[in-house]
Amino acid sequence: MYHLLYPLRSYLIVSGHQKTNVMTADWLTILSKEPFIIGVAISPKRYTYRLIKESGEFVVAVPTLEILGDVWVAGTKSTPDKLKYMKISFIESEKVKTKSVKEAVANLECKLIDERNYGDHTFFVGEVVHFMYDGEAFKNMVPDLKYKFLAHVAMNEFTTFEEKIYEC
Amino acid sequence: MYHLLYPLRSYLIVSGHQKTNVMTADWLTILSKEPFIIGVAISPKRYTYRLIKESGEFVVAVPTLEILGDVWVAGTKSTPDKLKYMKISFIESEKVKTKSVKEAVANLECKLIDERNYGDHTFFVGEVVHFMYDGEAFKNMVPDLKYKFLAHVAMNEFTTFEEKIYEC
Repeated sequence: MYHLLYPLRSYLIVSGHQKTNVMTADWLTILSKEPFIIGVAISPKRYTYRLIKESGEFVVAVPTLEILGDVWVAGTKSTPDKLKYMKISFIESEKVKTKSVKEAVANLECKLIDERNYGDHTFFVGEVVHFMYDGEAFKNMVPDLKYKFLAHVAMNEFTTFEEKIYEC
Repeated sequence: MYHLLYPLRSYLIVSGHQKTNVMTADWLTILSKEPFIIGVAISPKRYTYRLIKESGEFVVAVPTLEILGDVWVAGTKSTPDKLKYMKISFIESEKVKTKSVKEAVANLECKLIDERNYGDHTFFVGEVVHFMYDGEAFKNMVPDLKYKFLAHVAMNEFTTFEEKIYEC
């Protein structure tokens, strides 16, 4: 009944040195502001699991509605072979050997600092050692909802945010 | 620069046995499907931190736009004194002594199974031992976007989801 916490944002997890793989993950959270630490739960069945174990790194890329098709492929197909069905491209990262996603509005480069097994997933904890982002999509540190950040509703259903802000 | 992962869903964390406290948390994720395990990052400065340590329990309540005012108070004021500024009410939970929120569309009762310090927050990991939910808001395990689930954009700005589904 994890659906009770949905919709959740969908992110792309890039991993691998020799070969670059990319998968979609909704089970991701911020853990600390300073230092900036995040965590993502990944099933040991995923190819990405093995690549993160091997490399001790991963990159979190922030997709928008524009690349929803790729987010779907990355979440449903396995191994880097899936890339032939996708249109995104990779660029060099700054502080890790794992690549970043050119078409993402932000890329967070993470070095693995902890991993914990919880039930059917492993929680990979990474310190964000560098980030790149589109200054228009995050002006003054505030995400601009015009950029249509993706959220996963259920199965093959995604949504995005109203462009209306409710001020408290 | 944790803002790069925003907007994020906002949830209410209920804690305490003798006295009930409630705070707002965005830094929450699912960790495992079976068993159903979730985790939430909470600053040691928060009153909730002490209550979860003492009781070994917490409840995650899912708020909607209807109680945004309370979500804001719960996130910005401290100690159970804040409740006098709020309109939500508490009901008995089923499997934990910590109360649930009557006005939430779902309540997930958690027993603490792990805690880890990451930077400036502690990550509390709980097994969901029971849940209650509004069957209209989650028909066939799919959240109905008509219910206007809350997402935090920045500071005092919140939003909710488009009622449009993009099918892959």
